[in-house]
Amino acid sequence: MLHTRELFESMTTKPSLSSEQMATMVEALQDCAEAVLACSAGMLAARDAGHLAEAASRDMDCVDVVTTTRNVLTRGNGPDSSMLSAQLEVCLLACERSNELCGRHAEHHTHCRICSDATRHCADTCRATLDALHR
Amino acid sequence: MLHTRELFESMTTKPSLSSEQMATMVEALQDCAEAVLACSAGMLAARDAGHLAEAASRDMDCVDVVTTTRNVLTRGNGPDSSMLSAQLEVCLLACERSNELCGRHAEHHTHCRICSDATRHCADTCRATLDALHR
Amino acid sequence: MLHTRELFESMTTKPSLSSEQMATMVEALQDCAEAVLACSAGMLAARDAGHLAEAASRDMDCVDVVTTTRNVLTRGNGPDSSMLSAQLEVCLLACERSNELCGRHAEHHTHCRICSDATRHCADTCRATLDALHR
Amino acid sequence: MLHTRELFESMTTKPSLSSEQMATMVEALQDCAEAVLACSAGMLAARDAGHLAEAASRDMDCVDVVTTTRNVLTRGNGPDSSMLSAQLEVCLLACERSNELCGRHAEHHTHCRICSDATRHCADTCRATLDALHR
Repeated sequence: MLHTRELFESMTTKPSLSSEQMATMVEALQDCAEAVLACSAGMLAARDAGHLAEAASRDMDCVDVVTTTRNVLTRGNGPDSSMLSAQLEVCLLACERSNELCGRHAEHHTHCRICSDATRHCADTCRATLDALHR
Repeated sequence: MLHTRELFESMTTKPSLSSEQMATMVEALQDCAEAVLACSAGMLAARDAGHLAEAASRDMDCVDVVTTTRNVLTRGNGPDSSMLSAQLEVCLLACERSNELCGRHAEHHTHCRICSDATRHCADTCRATLDALHR
Repeated sequence: MLHTRELFESMTTKPSLSSEQMATMVEALQDCAEAVLACSAGMLAARDAGHLAEAASRDMDCVDVVTTTRNVLTRGNGPDSSMLSAQLEVCLLACERSNELCGRHAEHHTHCRICSDATRHCADTCRATLDALHR
Repeated sequence: MLHTRELFESMTTKPSLSSEQMATMVEALQDCAEAVLACSAGMLAARDAGHLAEAASRDMDCVDVVTTTRNVLTRGNGPDSSMLSAQLEVCLLACERSNELCGRHAEHHTHCRICSDATRHCADTCRATLDALHR
């Protein structure tokens, strides 16, 4: 398993976040990307794929946005955190939208339940990171 | 060459944008991603790479954000354009930041000048698209 | 419109390809990514989405692979082109697979026909670039 | 933490890999992407960035390839695993190349050592997955 916190401690380019905050946010983003990817694949392979196509489409947006957020966050940001903030805002919206659409199918598909948990956790972590940036 | 406008006219999922607006925005995003990618590679290969590292790093963020914006825009958005708006806002910031950093080297490196033109054009197109969405 | 050839001529890091070969390949990749993205969105929004889910899923793989190929190609490669070759091989497979699946629906959906043309052109250009690299 | 194995067990689209093999491979890819991203950012921020630019550039290729591999693997593949195999082959090359370049700086930069470990582990896991696919 990756020692994410040690990794960030070794870097000289840090945004206004602690290594622990960075590690927590990165892990939430990684888990979210994976859960949403798997869920959209699971929905497209389901018998009721036609019914789930809208949710699958929003999930693909979510994967792209979450992955870009991981990249932007990890690269660090210098003293100006306005771009990181804007990226976290769009990430929050993408997670909330996937969460809303997948949550409806959480009873019928295990991958929708796991996805729904991961997007909620990621949205919450985005909110906490935004708070830390604006403090 | 791709018939981008014909492509969007054939789709049933459109956001609150015309096929022409979609095509103009997509082309600006594609050109921008390519110019910024090439520019960051050119800077890292230059003799004064150490001096250009900050600009190269911001360019990488820009490529990811611009590519995700292309994906989100192309997938279409349904009636709710709040996520597309947020994505265009972060794209605008990323383009402006790359533009500012690369513009400083535009006299010394042709790829910086081309990159600087492409990020300015993409930022302007983002603003026009945001105006169209909010109308 | 981006002056892709001028861009590559200004760079000092070139793989074993001419600026014209680079520009032709990059344009094929950009057009392909856009056509495949739009097509998968179009299929998921269609009334027969359930029937088209497999093709949509392969299209998403194709978009990711084609976009990564654009990035790897544009960054240049130094004297060793083995990674670029391997990337072009997987890109060729991804384009052929999308082409096969979308070609079946080309009569019923305009976006499938445009996508089918773009993936065929991109696959052909990958083959020509692989030939040039191995010469 | 994401229950990756449970996630894959809930999906109906599986390639010729067990849920455990899928989970192991996905985790290696996620850790690798993060370590390589952080390392390239760390190198570009270092005082000797000019010296490290080649390694940083190869790391960026690696991040893109590894992330696309995660996406292709997670989407599942149907009975034909030829594209997944080709994707794993290019991923193996990208990891080996980053590993070779970063390994040289492992003594001087902690992020290079962590990156070097993560790319080696990911390359080994790619080899094991390719073996399982070809069995």
